[in-house]
Amino acid sequence: MTHRVFNFSAGPAAMPEPVLQRAQSELLDYRGSGMSVMEMSHRGSHFMAIRDKAEADLRTLLAIPADYRVLFLQGGALAQNAAVPLNLLPVGGVADYVDTGHWAQKSIAEGRKYGEVNVAASSADANYTYVPPQSSWHRSPRASYVHVTTNETIGGVEYFAIPDTGDVPLVADASSHILSRPFDVARFGVIYAGAQKNVGPAGLTVVIVRDALTGRARRECPSVLDYAVQAKADSMFNTPPTFAIYLAGLTFEWLLAQGGLAAIERVNVAKAEALYAEIDRTGFYGNPVRKEDRSRVSVPFVLRDESLNDAFLDGAKKRGLTQLKGHRAVGGMRASIYNAMPRAGVDALVSWMRDFERTHG
Amino acid sequence: MTHRVFNFSAGPAAMPEPVLQRAQSELLDYRGSGMSVMEMSHRGSHFMAIRDKAEADLRTLLAIPADYRVLFLQGGALAQNAAVPLNLLPVGGVADYVDTGHWAQKSIAEGRKYGEVNVAASSADANYTYVPPQSSWHRSPRASYVHVTTNETIGGVEYFAIPDTGDVPLVADASSHILSRPFDVARFGVIYAGAQKNVGPAGLTVVIVRDALTGRARRECPSVLDYAVQAKADSMFNTPPTFAIYLAGLTFEWLLAQGGLAAIERVNVAKAEALYAEIDRTGFYGNPVRKEDRSRVSVPFVLRDESLNDAFLDGAKKRGLTQLKGHRAVGGMRASIYNAMPRAGVDALVSWMRDFERTHG
Repeated sequence: MTHRVFNFSAGPAAMPEPVLQRAQSELLDYRGSGMSVMEMSHRGSHFMAIRDKAEADLRTLLAIPADYRVLFLQGGALAQNAAVPLNLLPVGGVADYVDTGHWAQKSIAEGRKYGEVNVAASSADANYTYVPPQSSWHRSPRASYVHVTTNETIGGVEYFAIPDTGDVPLVADASSHILSRPFDVARFGVIYAGAQKNVGPAGLTVVIVRDALTGRARRECPSVLDYAVQAKADSMFNTPPTFAIYLAGLTFEWLLAQGGLAAIERVNVAKAEALYAEIDRTGFYGNPVRKEDRSRVSVPFVLRDESLNDAFLDGAKKRGLTQLKGHRAVGGMRASIYNAMPRAGVDALVSWMRDFERTHG
Repeated sequence: MTHRVFNFSAGPAAMPEPVLQRAQSELLDYRGSGMSVMEMSHRGSHFMAIRDKAEADLRTLLAIPADYRVLFLQGGALAQNAAVPLNLLPVGGVADYVDTGHWAQKSIAEGRKYGEVNVAASSADANYTYVPPQSSWHRSPRASYVHVTTNETIGGVEYFAIPDTGDVPLVADASSHILSRPFDVARFGVIYAGAQKNVGPAGLTVVIVRDALTGRARRECPSVLDYAVQAKADSMFNTPPTFAIYLAGLTFEWLLAQGGLAAIERVNVAKAEALYAEIDRTGFYGNPVRKEDRSRVSVPFVLRDESLNDAFLDGAKKRGLTQLKGHRAVGGMRASIYNAMPRAGVDALVSWMRDFERTHG
């Protein structure tokens, strides 16, 4: 029998087991074609059908308006950190960025290569434990866009209200919580996400971009990152990561079968509530994030007595609860509970936390 | 029983069946870890071991000298067409390119975004049916590098002699024949290759770069394409395409088990000789490439009577010989016979060609 653990990795992260089972069964022969999906021409009828269905299902899940293009690219969110200014920021231009921690800072550093970055707000003053409310932002009147990182995996903060930036395009790195809840795509100019949390395996990047924002790329933008070039080529200017797109498509099918994003959000809310309730219960554990900004999918927590960390992790592993060690920047523990983490996995973690406190508290 | 065809796709292309079988068996539980390789942190011990072994095996296969870095990136050869000038060409600089057809022209077009391109030689005068000999090249004395496309999948021409560019770095897009034969890496400054022919699935790009050529990137080079940034980060500046690297590693293991590149070259020579012999046998079929430049892995051919094309392809498909239709730019047929195409597949194609000629000749 296949041995499986509850895998709390921040990413690449656990995938829905039925998706992996389907991929396994079709790995050498995709539906009688005599080929693996990996072995197919990306311009052949089999793969084109896979790609088209993946896009259609993603459009259904997120209710993506018709004037948005869906691009399946490579390079991850970190490539998009360059692609966004290369596509949207004129030479000598300014862009607003909101600094919510580690990943926002990566976007800011890359943005500075291409123009002036105005950090409109930052939660550095409280060690990135909250999302700066829009009322506190100092935006540049010249900004070509406003960039936000809508979930921070290390700090564990998440935007629940979508900022209103008026006519200035709002650009979001939504890598770590895309598809975990409904999202009003029309409020954004660009949404981008590395696949390796809620979409599929690492190596695929989803970009959802308003049509009107394509066609402005700078000359020095590599063609593979040029939104207009890739939109015109249906994301096939270069050979796409075909197997990753296939797995993303299977994941979208799985999400639709769960009832779509409103249904998975209910599950995610319940999972997060159960875990934060345990973290807050006695003070043995702790999470410093402002309650209304606590991420539903990235849950860092500490043991008040840090000398118990190794014992906690060792015992967790013995119960099949893995990859719980926190990021070195904040220490402690981190439970990443994306869509593919079942409620049973969270319950098993909560149960371990109770048992551990009982014996070590 | 699993149904498998002989798949002559130009890429993404057939993979060794033992590689796919191994991946299938481990898909939900990599060696007792309880996780798919797709679900593992790229910084965890399991994946780091996979990555390190893949690099070590690739170094063994190609006898890569110690002063070369191996990068596992994303974006394909078309991303590298931008990365090469962004890393090697100073602003206002010149680069030499040799034009051997479709893929060389893609490199040239991208190169022109970043500086002056000197087309040192071209085989356009004979419809790209030969490799311009180095004695005919007109190189720029100011060139920062010389770019060659060492196998053209559409025209079907291949470099068998490595040009000698002296102190000027030689840069090769070797996507479509890397690992099909031994290659003297020390003769090159940079070798790059999309994985989807001889390395693994689409979505992975192998870059082999001499240490001394890293650290020169222009400011506008996206960090994910900056050789120095990726070398310093062991190709993990962004999350790498972990599953594709795993499959590449399995492919490298398979190649070593075949006896390495000298052994696979002997197989590839024999396969190519058998196929070209049949193409040349009577004049019923034809291939226009100069004999000494004929690619061993990309074999385009035409039927002298083009009205028979569909009948040829239909009959081939009935025998399980698929994806033989030629690229629209040259028409006719194309048999891509990379490492994973067994001799039996070439023999089956030759047999079909004979039978077809007998009934239609």
